[in-house]
Amino acid sequence: MDRDLRPIFWNDEEKKLILVDQRKLPNKLEYFECKTYTDVCYAIKDMVVRGAPAIGVSAAYGLALAELNGNNIENAYMELKETRPTAVNLFWALDKAMNAKINGKSILDEAKLIHDEDVELCKKIGKIGETLIKDGDTILTHCNAGALATSAYGTALSIIRFAHYSGKKINVISDETRPRLQGAKLTCFELNYEKIPVKAICDNTAGYLMSKGMIDKIIVGADRILSDYHVFNKIGTYSLAILAKYHNVPFYVAAPYSTFDFKSKLVDIVVEERDDVEVTYIDGVRVVSEGVSAYNFAFDCTPPELITGIITEKEIIYPNLGK
Amino acid sequence: MDRDLRPIFWNDEEKKLILVDQRKLPNKLEYFECKTYTDVCYAIKDMVVRGAPAIGVSAAYGLALAELNGNNIENAYMELKETRPTAVNLFWALDKAMNAKINGKSILDEAKLIHDEDVELCKKIGKIGETLIKDGDTILTHCNAGALATSAYGTALSIIRFAHYSGKKINVISDETRPRLQGAKLTCFELNYEKIPVKAICDNTAGYLMSKGMIDKIIVGADRILSDYHVFNKIGTYSLAILAKYHNVPFYVAAPYSTFDFKSKLVDIVVEERDDVEVTYIDGVRVVSEGVSAYNFAFDCTPPELITGIITEKEIIYPNLGK
Repeated sequence: MDRDLRPIFWNDEEKKLILVDQRKLPNKLEYFECKTYTDVCYAIKDMVVRGAPAIGVSAAYGLALAELNGNNIENAYMELKETRPTAVNLFWALDKAMNAKINGKSILDEAKLIHDEDVELCKKIGKIGETLIKDGDTILTHCNAGALATSAYGTALSIIRFAHYSGKKINVISDETRPRLQGAKLTCFELNYEKIPVKAICDNTAGYLMSKGMIDKIIVGADRILSDYHVFNKIGTYSLAILAKYHNVPFYVAAPYSTFDFKSKLVDIVVEERDDVEVTYIDGVRVVSEGVSAYNFAFDCTPPELITGIITEKEIIYPNLGK
Repeated sequence: MDRDLRPIFWNDEEKKLILVDQRKLPNKLEYFECKTYTDVCYAIKDMVVRGAPAIGVSAAYGLALAELNGNNIENAYMELKETRPTAVNLFWALDKAMNAKINGKSILDEAKLIHDEDVELCKKIGKIGETLIKDGDTILTHCNAGALATSAYGTALSIIRFAHYSGKKINVISDETRPRLQGAKLTCFELNYEKIPVKAICDNTAGYLMSKGMIDKIIVGADRILSDYHVFNKIGTYSLAILAKYHNVPFYVAAPYSTFDFKSKLVDIVVEERDDVEVTYIDGVRVVSEGVSAYNFAFDCTPPELITGIITEKEIIYPNLGK
């Protein structure tokens, strides 16, 4: 069935976390080894590993490494927590690992559990979501909500995978997703690897394709979902949702329940602003004229009225049903 | 006042057209010399010169070179006409030059006239348009509708320049404008050159900034405007117009009357699809995963209901007034 593209490995013999170095994909498949929790902090900050569920799993292993190396767990917990501000799975996984510790269990065992569970969650999201896909659909996705963003299969791409596995003929269009081009680099790599037909577009092209009737559905992942169904995801998601509404294209979000933040209110969330070199340079080449800086908001917020459905491992939530 | 950034020069002594090689900007200011009309064809096709008005002026000089070199004028006319399909100023300028020939005038004199007139048109567009700009406005623009796209001043950027010259404090946000990054490379260069505050963004960020109230107005150029006010312009313009409507941000198009196509109907227009290497590679570096291709539509079409006003050298047209 699948060829099992996985970004996170735990080496039990040598007690180290091995990550696919996603900064090098698709041109090179290199691995990044983490022997300490600070290695994991670096890997998350610098986006060796990215994608909300994958960040969560990696952080849990990070805390396990702190325990194995005899570091101060409280400090490790705080440092890991501060690596990136938006993906709520990071906090969820760290809290779960910390609770295991408090309850006298091994953090490593808990991390392994979170890791294994994430594979199952993604599979369930794929199987539930693929029921929405029709034979012949062209599906647009943004960024990479794939196997590389999770422990396996992905969230949005799990749905695409399971639709493909079920024999439906589907085509995928992948937004390149500036500034870091996760769509062009990772999503195109993943889908091409599984021989699922995919074409790339520049982010500014989606609206035109919708106007031409070339997109049947949009499925994206999520970094954080509030209890009122506001969805934080990669910058550009919000614009896509508005364009989808304008063209009556169904707009779906795929994410496990660990992506839900039931505590925070909309006003509490500060969107991560990253270094503007991600915009002003592409792969080391300066593209913005010298002396000019850039805004680099990493995420945006899509309100529930623009969302057709949220596909979780348990059910499909329809935020506007009955409204 | 302005420091007179101009992309097109006619050298009367050596009878050659000198173009700023816009493929090299902003890193290098190099010139591209055209001694034959086929040099001009290449320069337009390969985007040494780009921007609808600048393409028109260059093509007229191309026809003049054909005359000077004793080439078959009909053939030169056809070849120049087929360099790019969307910018209507190309056909307008070629027809104007051809008519001069038919009426026994010099094509070179006509080309010089078109060139000089374009400077005046752009100045007028700037002066008419700047009345819409308020002190303190932040203006978003897409692609490069600047001096580099015309003979001087630009269309959208002429408005920004004249607002700045009039002492209004304005800020500009420039969409980077994938795939060829004319916003990041050319618009940022032009505005920074004149010390007009400008910041770059990735194309997928505009919607989020609008939701945060960070954009007061949008002004873009045009490659072709139909008599019913459908506007063909750089890919991404249409999406911006939908996002502007959603957020109640005024959306203006700036273009001379030579951009109007009073003959064609919407169904007649075929949008130029360019080689997908423009998307799959950035500055020679492959960014889309190997084996995956891309759509590369160069333009899109914005319908009149999304346009607040069209700013020409004569007047501001309000397509929806009284509707």
